[in-house]
Amino acid sequence: MATRVNGADSLYSYSKYSSFQRNAIDAAKELIKEAVFDKLDIESFSSSNTFRVTDLGCAMGPNTFVAVQNIIEAVEDKYRTQGRNSEVPEFQVFFSDQAGNDFNQLFQSLPPDRNYFAMGVPGSFYSRLFPKAHLHFVYSSFSLQCLSKVPEEVLDSSSPAWNKGRVHYSNSAHQVVEAYSAQYAKDMECFLNARAQEIVGGGLMAFVVPGRPNETPHAHTYYNMSLDLFGSCLMDMAKKGVIAEDKVDSFNLPIYNASLQEVEAIVRGNGCFSIERTENLPQAKPQPNVFRLTVRAGMEHMIRAHFGEEILDEFFDTFCKKYEESTSVFESVKAISLFVLLKRIACTDH
Amino acid sequence: MATRVNGADSLYSYSKYSSFQRNAIDAAKELIKEAVFDKLDIESFSSSNTFRVTDLGCAMGPNTFVAVQNIIEAVEDKYRTQGRNSEVPEFQVFFSDQAGNDFNQLFQSLPPDRNYFAMGVPGSFYSRLFPKAHLHFVYSSFSLQCLSKVPEEVLDSSSPAWNKGRVHYSNSAHQVVEAYSAQYAKDMECFLNARAQEIVGGGLMAFVVPGRPNETPHAHTYYNMSLDLFGSCLMDMAKKGVIAEDKVDSFNLPIYNASLQEVEAIVRGNGCFSIERTENLPQAKPQPNVFRLTVRAGMEHMIRAHFGEEILDEFFDTFCKKYEESTSVFESVKAISLFVLLKRIACTDH
Repeated sequence: MATRVNGADSLYSYSKYSSFQRNAIDAAKELIKEAVFDKLDIESFSSSNTFRVTDLGCAMGPNTFVAVQNIIEAVEDKYRTQGRNSEVPEFQVFFSDQAGNDFNQLFQSLPPDRNYFAMGVPGSFYSRLFPKAHLHFVYSSFSLQCLSKVPEEVLDSSSPAWNKGRVHYSNSAHQVVEAYSAQYAKDMECFLNARAQEIVGGGLMAFVVPGRPNETPHAHTYYNMSLDLFGSCLMDMAKKGVIAEDKVDSFNLPIYNASLQEVEAIVRGNGCFSIERTENLPQAKPQPNVFRLTVRAGMEHMIRAHFGEEILDEFFDTFCKKYEESTSVFESVKAISLFVLLKRIACTDH
Repeated sequence: MATRVNGADSLYSYSKYSSFQRNAIDAAKELIKEAVFDKLDIESFSSSNTFRVTDLGCAMGPNTFVAVQNIIEAVEDKYRTQGRNSEVPEFQVFFSDQAGNDFNQLFQSLPPDRNYFAMGVPGSFYSRLFPKAHLHFVYSSFSLQCLSKVPEEVLDSSSPAWNKGRVHYSNSAHQVVEAYSAQYAKDMECFLNARAQEIVGGGLMAFVVPGRPNETPHAHTYYNMSLDLFGSCLMDMAKKGVIAEDKVDSFNLPIYNASLQEVEAIVRGNGCFSIERTENLPQAKPQPNVFRLTVRAGMEHMIRAHFGEEILDEFFDTFCKKYEESTSVFESVKAISLFVLLKRIACTDH
């Protein structure tokens, strides 16, 4: 993942300002309970006395604690309703994110009354993180939209996919969109191949990501419009001479907001997972004051790394002001998150 | 564990100044290779395709990376020399320390070419950290001398074990020594019971700790003499009025340096492990300049927490000066570390 969120010490701390995502977690909560109840075959795991859960892209909490507790309670309920109280396994939870994540903060804010063994796993989920056949439930929330890198062509001035004057694909030439979409497919294939090895047969994987409704043009979805606005603010600053124009040309956001159709096609192509359920979850749009804090907590790091500390305040002020002014435009488009539930099937070629 | 080491950002960083302990790690390295070769029954683990190692009290590296690599190479060698190359398992390494440890530094300095899946596990090793029957090799270096807490009696002015005017037991009344030794036995019992559940039958546990030769009085061993000097510097500062005397009375070091006889008695009493090998390892005494840095990296946190930031420089200057002046006294006593190798045996009552 090329993006990361602000640490706990930051003024715009992710742990304080990630409440916007709670909306999607709450929506997914019931779906995950149903997934465990309807789709999890606990018989097939009975040889293991440990049930292993991971949250990939867990950040530093607290959302991740709510999510894993929900999964664990659902599994416990399932054992109990089947009259198998004595067989309830021990739970081991792997909180995973990039090595640059604030694991110190995560570990120090673990719920003291947790009923699981907590572990931290540093690394990119686009490669292997766990031993073979290790995991029973994989969860990921608002992380799989982050590409492993910006597609190379969009930064290459000699390529037809050069994305000059823009930092995202949604209003760009079709070659740019294709470069992004190809990078997404490649990354998802790496993700699925890694997980196919790590998840036990019959194990479940549920993820929630910001999405695009099927058939809706890239430029007409809430998340992409926000990112387009983000880019236009950088261009405004370049025009004003605050930042160099070629600095903007060499900056693109490694984010892709897929549709369910795209995700389903990639999963089918991979062949290691059955698609058990997909949903477009309506996503509340954040109020401007929440937006301001959320977006800065999530994206400050990227802007700082490329443009330097000194433009941060001006940039985020401009961006949030423009966002407020565009409220009526944003009201006219849908914001959705995708919910995808997969089950690991036998897959001899992996 | 009541002690912790300085973080990477500190002037006296543990990761920079833990070279003194490398001496013991190097001495233990060969013993661990022999342990894997002679005592590890890989046949009995063949149903698992993952070999799980933990370092308990790993701090922030780099010593821990050297130690776990040594264990992994020994296991790989064992498979190869038995002509079982195709059966070499995947390795999963759990780096464990208190939640206050600098895991961010640890994760960011993981060897990039490692051939294991790295996990961090926050928590005290005096309670459960892992699911049942999870671990194949447990390692701990220079950590098990840290008690879970200071024995209560030694801080209680109404107790015959009140340790007035001292911060350690080695020159104190026998009641103080007994309180420390009882706390050590209790903590070790908790440690062994937790590990008994977590280690697979036939799994190995090796630990290295600063020790006391059998039959040698507590006051005549290098580590205890250093700690006694440490306490006398605090008392000197109290006499000079720099710190309050009752502040020293309410401070005791939660450290116990056991002998092999003591360790063996506790392990036998526990009954879940067979003692496969014990050794007194000669421990080089650090030169004064190394001592200065090592001791400050390891103990600054404790002094700061109890006496405040402002006395740190004066205290460590005094302590190190006294240590230099006492070189001839220290030369006359032995410094040893204990090496203990245990194997998990069937134990029906756990």
